[in-house]
Amino acid sequence: MRHASALFFAAALLAAAPVHAADLAAGATAVRDKALIDPTAWKVVESLTTEVGARPVGTPAMMRARDWAVATLNGLGFENVHVEPFAAKAWIRGEELAEVIGPSPQKLQILGLGDSPPTPKGGLTAEIALFRTYQAMLDQPPGALAGKIAVVTQPMARTQDASGYGAMIVARARGPVEAAKRGAVGYLVRSLSTSDSRLPHAGYTDPPATIPAAALSPPDAEQLERLVARGKPVSVRLAMSSSVVPAAPCWNVVGEIRGREKPDEVIVVGGHLESWDPGTGAIDDGAGVAITTAAAHLATQGERPKRTIRVVMWGSEEQGGSGGAYARAHAAEVGKVVVVGEADIGADRVWRVALPAGGRDHPAAKAYAAALAPLGVVMASEPATRGGADVDGLVKAGAPVVQISQDASRYFDIHHSADDTLDKIDPAAMGQAVAVWASFLYVAANSDVDFRAAAKP
Amino acid sequence: MRHASALFFAAALLAAAPVHAADLAAGATAVRDKALIDPTAWKVVESLTTEVGARPVGTPAMMRARDWAVATLNGLGFENVHVEPFAAKAWIRGEELAEVIGPSPQKLQILGLGDSPPTPKGGLTAEIALFRTYQAMLDQPPGALAGKIAVVTQPMARTQDASGYGAMIVARARGPVEAAKRGAVGYLVRSLSTSDSRLPHAGYTDPPATIPAAALSPPDAEQLERLVARGKPVSVRLAMSSSVVPAAPCWNVVGEIRGREKPDEVIVVGGHLESWDPGTGAIDDGAGVAITTAAAHLATQGERPKRTIRVVMWGSEEQGGSGGAYARAHAAEVGKVVVVGEADIGADRVWRVALPAGGRDHPAAKAYAAALAPLGVVMASEPATRGGADVDGLVKAGAPVVQISQDASRYFDIHHSADDTLDKIDPAAMGQAVAVWASFLYVAANSDVDFRAAAKP
Repeated sequence: MRHASALFFAAALLAAAPVHAADLAAGATAVRDKALIDPTAWKVVESLTTEVGARPVGTPAMMRARDWAVATLNGLGFENVHVEPFAAKAWIRGEELAEVIGPSPQKLQILGLGDSPPTPKGGLTAEIALFRTYQAMLDQPPGALAGKIAVVTQPMARTQDASGYGAMIVARARGPVEAAKRGAVGYLVRSLSTSDSRLPHAGYTDPPATIPAAALSPPDAEQLERLVARGKPVSVRLAMSSSVVPAAPCWNVVGEIRGREKPDEVIVVGGHLESWDPGTGAIDDGAGVAITTAAAHLATQGERPKRTIRVVMWGSEEQGGSGGAYARAHAAEVGKVVVVGEADIGADRVWRVALPAGGRDHPAAKAYAAALAPLGVVMASEPATRGGADVDGLVKAGAPVVQISQDASRYFDIHHSADDTLDKIDPAAMGQAVAVWASFLYVAANSDVDFRAAAKP
Repeated sequence: MRHASALFFAAALLAAAPVHAADLAAGATAVRDKALIDPTAWKVVESLTTEVGARPVGTPAMMRARDWAVATLNGLGFENVHVEPFAAKAWIRGEELAEVIGPSPQKLQILGLGDSPPTPKGGLTAEIALFRTYQAMLDQPPGALAGKIAVVTQPMARTQDASGYGAMIVARARGPVEAAKRGAVGYLVRSLSTSDSRLPHAGYTDPPATIPAAALSPPDAEQLERLVARGKPVSVRLAMSSSVVPAAPCWNVVGEIRGREKPDEVIVVGGHLESWDPGTGAIDDGAGVAITTAAAHLATQGERPKRTIRVVMWGSEEQGGSGGAYARAHAAEVGKVVVVGEADIGADRVWRVALPAGGRDHPAAKAYAAALAPLGVVMASEPATRGGADVDGLVKAGAPVVQISQDASRYFDIHHSADDTLDKIDPAAMGQAVAVWASFLYVAANSDVDFRAAAKP
């Protein structure tokens, strides 16, 4: 009677769960399989990148993106679709040019960094001081870079978990201010890129750059290394213009599928709507918007969920502001947030899921793990403790966070560059990510799994 | 006595050859093995691309390239190093900008095509007429494109032998004139590229473009396809400036290793020194210059060769003129040219060698085939009948031509684009190409193999 015993045991387990685990697992599996081949995410990112294209914060394109977002959410049947305005600083790129003046005149491919001040009209010409590691520049005493353009050419590592980017971001973000402290009049950093393309990669600075600062394409960084290695002084001219809108109008765009049993318990997911300017923001973060929107849509195509699923398209992630604005506007609601999650690491497949602390042994979590099993996803042994910039405010206020990690191995080949275009998205890989998100939303919205007690700050 | 018989037979064969075939084979093998690991080619292309960088015909950079070439050939011990001046038309790129005006305003990445006239100041705005094949545009009757910017988005195929490029070059070269015939006011063609990069690819037109003409990056071509597929008219603004130097000073730079027995019998090889402007001309054609220069150097490091080996660095291949100028200047000498060959297909490994008609059964040819055997090279069953643009004039005048084909599978990812930089060269692959060239030069210069009778025009 082993067979019967096993059935009795399983039945007892299921009976102990407030929600019928087998139904949850079956539902999550059905959502997963539908999502794997559903075209919604592709259609969303195709539409956004084609009809809006690049959409930096503070530009007319971002206004078109806002209207696109409202129309898209309404078109997919979301409820309570609305725009939540806020203001944020917007740095707007102007003309940019860099060239070696001597000893071997040649043009360099650069992209100015966020918050970079403009050069004087006509540009800024100075000898470069080149460092092959960021630490080597930091090791310079005050005044050592007086009158020079500091150049840091340290490459970043290709990793699945984006840690290669995390390790080098300080060289871009903080480099300009550290160079200025040592007397530099300009700053050039090798693009935080894993590609060998001549297309440089944009990005923010923090604290804001106080001297003109730009990213070099990797081949240009290596070209400067070779020129410097010849032992003669190398002079570079940098000419950059830019403008700043101190309080640009911005918007987080929101849509919901309201819960049928506990509509006040909310699952908040999304991506960011704006993008850097060189590409069309396909992988950063049209894909995240598309994946979470499609996942919420697909997770709710049968019966209305028990809890509310809310999709947010954040409006100023790259230059900052949308996450903080959202957290402030929803501070009173944090206790009702079951879980938050942001998709902001491209369009490739998910390789790891980290659930929030608490509830990981709940039958709902096990049903989810069962749905993920055929997708080649690692269930992390450690809980998620932080999300991206747009959910960080809610997480710090006590909201539980799920971390659904897509494979970042290829992401930094094109991230923040002109190469961030639709053709780089593999629809099948993105479909796997939609399946992981959709089955998560299905389980979280249709069970009583609760991560909140463990997440209290 | 079979063994002895065989030896006698071999000895008789060798005795019949004016040059000792075993010595030739041993020499070719030694040269091959040295070339596989020799750094000369890398040093040459590193130096040219770093110290000169981009060097379009008609620019000060090309004057620096000329001086670099003389110094490099002298530095490697070449004799009779000199500059052969000529004049050619030079088209110089100016400012270039393209953008979709409506319905979805966004910037497009373009590169103007050679000989493209400028747009009116302030640019040219027109609705586009998009064709997914070049033939579809040709099928339009006269007047059908009146007032429009014609756009051809047909992609090119990736092939080992560059035939994918050959098949599509007409769309770039002849497209502007064919569009103009049908009333178009501008012409955009998908870059002849096998990459998905946003970096467009430059190139010549022939006959010269009579309307403003540019290449779109592949993602931009696909973006226009998607916009057009939405059914609304798409307007594009094109703003291009350029200038033409009708008779720019140009130079073919020459160096020789003079022959010890028949110095008037000359083997002419080389690559082209100038480049398009966006990259640093690493694979096109710094590599060809480096491979042939290094091969001539390495093939002559022992005893002085019997025949003269001449390296030519041609000075206006991309926009045309250097091959014709060379053939005119050396018309009286064609009968003394044993063989000519140009390396102008990048830095990857050789996959096929086609010898000239005549002499392919000579012991020298067999010695060469033996040296190539371990390098994974196909000896073509058909003779070579044409070379690149720079040797075509000599070939038409009766000079035998060798075709040493490098693998072009990756070449058109970066050819004529800003991505044509040193980092794209694999030194080991280039070393194999040097070995193939060097062993050819050794055999051709130290034997009496003669292809000339069969090559008479």
